[in-house]
Amino acid sequence: MGTKIASAASTTYGKHPNSSSRELLSEAAVKAFDETDISPGDLDAVYIGNFMGGLIEDQGHIGALMADHVGAREAASVRIESACVSGGATFCQAVQAVESGDADVVLAGGVEMMSTTDIEHVTDALANAADDVYENEQGLTFPGIYALMARRYMHEFDVMREDLAAVSVKNHRHAVDNPLAQFRKELSVREVVESKPVATPITLYDACPVSDGASVAIVVSDTFAADHGLETSAEVLGTGQSSDALALQDRAAISRTPAAERAAERAYENASVTADDIDVAEVHDCFTIAEILALEALSFYERGEGTRGAVEGETAADGHIPVNTSGGLIGKGHPVGATGIGQIVELTKQLEGRHPNQVSEAEVALAHNVGGSGASTTVTILGGE
Amino acid sequence: MGTKIASAASTTYGKHPNSSSRELLSEAAVKAFDETDISPGDLDAVYIGNFMGGLIEDQGHIGALMADHVGAREAASVRIESACVSGGATFCQAVQAVESGDADVVLAGGVEMMSTTDIEHVTDALANAADDVYENEQGLTFPGIYALMARRYMHEFDVMREDLAAVSVKNHRHAVDNPLAQFRKELSVREVVESKPVATPITLYDACPVSDGASVAIVVSDTFAADHGLETSAEVLGTGQSSDALALQDRAAISRTPAAERAAERAYENASVTADDIDVAEVHDCFTIAEILALEALSFYERGEGTRGAVEGETAADGHIPVNTSGGLIGKGHPVGATGIGQIVELTKQLEGRHPNQVSEAEVALAHNVGGSGASTTVTILGGE
Repeated sequence: MGTKIASAASTTYGKHPNSSSRELLSEAAVKAFDETDISPGDLDAVYIGNFMGGLIEDQGHIGALMADHVGAREAASVRIESACVSGGATFCQAVQAVESGDADVVLAGGVEMMSTTDIEHVTDALANAADDVYENEQGLTFPGIYALMARRYMHEFDVMREDLAAVSVKNHRHAVDNPLAQFRKELSVREVVESKPVATPITLYDACPVSDGASVAIVVSDTFAADHGLETSAEVLGTGQSSDALALQDRAAISRTPAAERAAERAYENASVTADDIDVAEVHDCFTIAEILALEALSFYERGEGTRGAVEGETAADGHIPVNTSGGLIGKGHPVGATGIGQIVELTKQLEGRHPNQVSEAEVALAHNVGGSGASTTVTILGGE
Repeated sequence: MGTKIASAASTTYGKHPNSSSRELLSEAAVKAFDETDISPGDLDAVYIGNFMGGLIEDQGHIGALMADHVGAREAASVRIESACVSGGATFCQAVQAVESGDADVVLAGGVEMMSTTDIEHVTDALANAADDVYENEQGLTFPGIYALMARRYMHEFDVMREDLAAVSVKNHRHAVDNPLAQFRKELSVREVVESKPVATPITLYDACPVSDGASVAIVVSDTFAADHGLETSAEVLGTGQSSDALALQDRAAISRTPAAERAAERAYENASVTADDIDVAEVHDCFTIAEILALEALSFYERGEGTRGAVEGETAADGHIPVNTSGGLIGKGHPVGATGIGQIVELTKQLEGRHPNQVSEAEVALAHNVGGSGASTTVTILGGE
């Protein structure tokens, strides 16, 4: 059974000091329902990606909470958590629910409130994505982890610090035109390099911000779509997921992301496409180095060649393989549990031909979402209708 | 595509002060792998039910963490959270993964560490399952919520406080023979009634304890089982899930559990059986009143008749419809994320004919797992091989 996207929408990403997870998710859901003939009562299931609701809002059990708030109180419900890939994993689970025949209409949502607490608290909460025993208790933070990956990569491939900054420059430029994005201001390489040091070589503008936001995709079986004469926007061609050790010390390599390589391989096989077929991609650029590693794991570039994407303009919206036309996590924002679904929202708009940074003739799109420093990854491939 | 259980095992439930979630889950997994010809490298996916790892152990992202620790570092992985039904929901997701064709072998695990922190902290963490705005911030705790449900039920159906206690007496009696159980000591109705008051009419022995523990079920597609000549123990006949409002104030009724009624209806339909076909059941008795409401939601008893089960011995291991032959949550213990999978472990043993409280000719078994005070429920029906 095939799975299609009936509708997809996001709130703005950024700071929502007067809101809550239930309000943000409901706002995204209302936007999504407004664009389809499906009503909340049609939902068989509500799957919600969320990472730190228990830590920030004292609220777990938000699958059921959100099912109620979107008007589907009797649906099956569950929360999916896999750190920063919670949204991507939620989408994969929703697709499985449809493909198993257990559900015809599933709301795959993601939400995170992060800005309403102090930065120390949200940093502690984010650290839950790392290995508490072998990383957190030793004082290793996520910027530190990615700094180690970046330094190793720069050493192996003779990459300049400015080459990392080019990713941030590109993604900030894309974000300027995206009304959902948190940062809508262009930056220069110099501004990135000279921004506040975080963990050498990573500076403030190499990193994604702390964000609030929600995204929703309503997925349906193709038989439901046909039976109800639904106009759908995109088809799920394939998904792939894979894992790795949580702790960097336990990985086979730290300048590669093998979980992403395996997830990509599975998704390409599942979708019967290759990297060459991808017209546009959203990848997980929590730090600039992460986008470069993603480009290589997805086979857009050979090992050690990933910096070419941003430096030479090939991953710009008008380039050969446009990446993060939304602005990415760096420019659009990264409300953790929402991000993976937010990528689906952006790609759906690309496939519909109505993205603010529209890629011409976008027919096959890819989303790449990562948990922690690469211990879990989902890759989703969508096709236009 | 059908789904079968290749193997299922639990750690003891109780206090494990020198352990951690990763150690407990691995212990259960080793026991499960020891009883089947499947090896960890065969796993396509690892799904882990866990409620409060972030709050108790500062550890999220435990799908990937556990995949690594059970020897399946490259598998897909995810954590499923739906409060106290995290385990039941995990099992349902694992079944969907198999039935979608996306996976042939899935480890469905559940784990919780609860006893290694102080009681105030674990009570706060458990409160994440309730509506933070409309319940927790008003000072309503879970014993308080279930006390309200019990009092309303007693008022409507003229039920005596001793009738509630009979559930605890029965389940403690069952636990005596279960080597995995936390409490292995018989209690009298008088001892239950006269135990420490918690929230009238609920006393200490009407409530499940705080527990640590892990459970694992290895589920496989029937084609994988056939291709590998596997001897499996049980078949998944059907599952059902439903939700309700989190806050008691928003429900249509508080002396009923409509989400469980709907989940049961879906599971019975899915499995093509009726309540009359069930030979043995594990139901979610977090408090004595919860078991009574479960018996009615599952159609074992008419509304208002559920107390008959324990009072008249009909739900004892040698009764007409044996319920919680494991000792249930009250006698066996309730490591939240593990409980739903632990029910599957107990029922698999019943279907294999090797349970410590063996029910004669057990061929069809039912598990009923609840999140919060009834906002989410899963019902799973298994058949013997």
